[in-house]
Amino acid sequence: MKHIVIVGFESAGLTAAAAARATDRSAKITVIERRGYAIYHPCGIPFAIGGDVSDIELLIEPAPPMVNVEVRTSTEAVAIDPDGRTIEVRELKTNKEESLSYDALVLATGSYAFKPPIPGIELKHVYTVKTVEDGRAIIAALGRAKRALVVGAGPIGIETAMALKTRGLSVTIVEMLPNVLPGMLDQDMAELVTQKLREGGIEVMCGRRVQEIRGKEVVESAIVDGQELPADIVIVATGVRPEVKLAKEAGIEIGETGGIKVDDHLRTSASDVYAAGDCAESICLVTKRPILSQLATTAIRMGRVAGINAAGGDEVFDGTLNTVVTSAYDLEIASTGLTSQSARAAGIEPISGRIRALNRPKYYPGATPIWVKLLVEPVEHRIIGGQLVGAKGAAERANLLALAIRKGMTVEELVKLEHCYAPPVCDCIDPLVIAAEAILRRL
Amino acid sequence: MKHIVIVGFESAGLTAAAAARATDRSAKITVIERRGYAIYHPCGIPFAIGGDVSDIELLIEPAPPMVNVEVRTSTEAVAIDPDGRTIEVRELKTNKEESLSYDALVLATGSYAFKPPIPGIELKHVYTVKTVEDGRAIIAALGRAKRALVVGAGPIGIETAMALKTRGLSVTIVEMLPNVLPGMLDQDMAELVTQKLREGGIEVMCGRRVQEIRGKEVVESAIVDGQELPADIVIVATGVRPEVKLAKEAGIEIGETGGIKVDDHLRTSASDVYAAGDCAESICLVTKRPILSQLATTAIRMGRVAGINAAGGDEVFDGTLNTVVTSAYDLEIASTGLTSQSARAAGIEPISGRIRALNRPKYYPGATPIWVKLLVEPVEHRIIGGQLVGAKGAAERANLLALAIRKGMTVEELVKLEHCYAPPVCDCIDPLVIAAEAILRRL
Repeated sequence: MKHIVIVGFESAGLTAAAAARATDRSAKITVIERRGYAIYHPCGIPFAIGGDVSDIELLIEPAPPMVNVEVRTSTEAVAIDPDGRTIEVRELKTNKEESLSYDALVLATGSYAFKPPIPGIELKHVYTVKTVEDGRAIIAALGRAKRALVVGAGPIGIETAMALKTRGLSVTIVEMLPNVLPGMLDQDMAELVTQKLREGGIEVMCGRRVQEIRGKEVVESAIVDGQELPADIVIVATGVRPEVKLAKEAGIEIGETGGIKVDDHLRTSASDVYAAGDCAESICLVTKRPILSQLATTAIRMGRVAGINAAGGDEVFDGTLNTVVTSAYDLEIASTGLTSQSARAAGIEPISGRIRALNRPKYYPGATPIWVKLLVEPVEHRIIGGQLVGAKGAAERANLLALAIRKGMTVEELVKLEHCYAPPVCDCIDPLVIAAEAILRRL
Repeated sequence: MKHIVIVGFESAGLTAAAAARATDRSAKITVIERRGYAIYHPCGIPFAIGGDVSDIELLIEPAPPMVNVEVRTSTEAVAIDPDGRTIEVRELKTNKEESLSYDALVLATGSYAFKPPIPGIELKHVYTVKTVEDGRAIIAALGRAKRALVVGAGPIGIETAMALKTRGLSVTIVEMLPNVLPGMLDQDMAELVTQKLREGGIEVMCGRRVQEIRGKEVVESAIVDGQELPADIVIVATGVRPEVKLAKEAGIEIGETGGIKVDDHLRTSASDVYAAGDCAESICLVTKRPILSQLATTAIRMGRVAGINAAGGDEVFDGTLNTVVTSAYDLEIASTGLTSQSARAAGIEPISGRIRALNRPKYYPGATPIWVKLLVEPVEHRIIGGQLVGAKGAAERANLLALAIRKGMTVEELVKLEHCYAPPVCDCIDPLVIAAEAILRRL
């Protein structure tokens, strides 16, 4: 009977366990998880802070029933011996150590919130937004906080800023890069989001750097490009870093991105050791270069592949386009593939088309606008990226574009897209087609 | 200077004119349209009847500005001489006839509402729902009507039934086939729609036939399988038939479906004569057999191809999956490709998976359900059809599935679909993936 050990029980680990279970019905599966509880939903934390999710404890779930899967919470993986195929684990409550032998090991150790080396970042009331503990601490701090500074305008930064604003705080977002959501949007599309956040009463400062966080024990202000901004709570939302300590110490190869290096079967450099999720590298489907995707959806897709292969199956992870959605008040904001900036960084000078369309025929009341920006590469006109901002249908259109990019679709093909139409739902020419037409006029 | 003549100015004709204009900037383009006005939106008529569209006249639009395109309304195409490359037209107001010579001709003559041979169907207050004139007549009849019978439970029948119910009439829908939306949905999915219509107070009778419409001059009742149902207004929504008289009389080949036969460039059997839209045949992308698509979106896609080719370009129309959406109160209902019934009619015994999922994580309030049914063929497991019923996101998911089917995607690929996730927008495993998983468990 095969023994599969999985380290980490978030999106990747959970999916790996379920996929391994389905692939080999007789294998014994052990999951090692440092947390005291099985599963939680990190993407829900900003919404628990804001109160949309009524109780943060709703984000914690017991492990779903899986036959012959032992989930050992409050247990830490201490060391791997890849040659001996053993993993050393420690029960955190008893400090009892134990060596488990494995036939296959899946590393799904996830990531930790990155704290940039800003003086004062260790002061009290400076928070990251990654764990349920972070969320509880922020919620506990809400009562006495009046002014919040959010460092970083990625999805988590923006979602948390809106949550704090909803809770009555005055909120300023400071982003180092020239626009909000810099990983998702070009500057022209990001402008729509900035405007929406400002309408919501949030101050947005882009291209600005937090140099210092000041206070005695407790944060009192931050210095942003020489200007002192009072703040009694600071949210650091500057991304996550892969948790690779265990792999590194076992001599498993780490890639240039800082994530665990894997092949298309998610095999690491150690035999029968797989890696999936935030701790591992993905491949960008457009550039074919390693990237850190660090999305729950990528973790789920990787976890499935790692779990199947760990259990003796043969499945490939082809890569990711980092398809992502967030929202700013009543706007859905989604993107897939490369932005203009990431395309240029990869040596591609993209041809772009940007349009505004309505989601319903103009004679039908209640139509709302959607903005679409498409990027194609200049040689074969293959689609390499898409950005959508609108009240409705941004997410699903980003998913469709992700499929189109994956299938090597050109803008000449996209203009012929088959789609449905009914006046209360959508118009007879889809915004994606209108955006494709805008590019065709430039070619 | 080339002369392109287009007969008909709805979705296909309008798009053909614009595409021809963009392809050959010097050609003279003449559009012949029998109606007294340029463009109208037939799909909007039920919503004008119900009042969602406040005034039915909003559905009429002037021709958009196009350089060197002459749109001759109130003008009928009388006869084509394919050998002489001339078309005889008659101005309806003056009865003046004129012969126009053409270098390329696009037939976009559309379709007419089908009236089944039911005794009494010519009585007063029996209406079809195809033209603005139909819509005006129904609206004028609303004041004195109390009981409506709708014959046919396709999208137009259902949308009109809801409109009449909104206007305070008691409404019964009678459908000959075993379920509502028989061209779109399997019986199990259609049941969700029937239930929603019944909750809205509409009586739905499926597998029942209207044998006779009774009344003196004016409709008074209908006989449905021997039962007399009182009705002072009858809506006949039993589909449309291709308008092919002009083509037929010119000796242009008509296909087995009754539509004008075309090749993949939308060329008819007469040289330099193209056909597009409801009057022409399409190809089903799954069965590769000719079908009548008769959707505005198909007409637009065909019109573009016919216009480009008529102007000397080289564009292919690959076919259609008849991707379609309608709504029943707060439900979006969409489908693409084959249903179980149409698959079996084509000799394919489909493998299906049907699931119910939520559009948001279960911890996030306001989640609404979506039902997905997927069909795959049993040999290579390629997706051949999809049906979606839900409060949100059905249309866009049908569009994604249409692209997946077009690209020959298997259910094994679909289960790896890349998609985005954010708690207020969508869940971390898309309903399409959950439906694919349901099929994989059966293989």
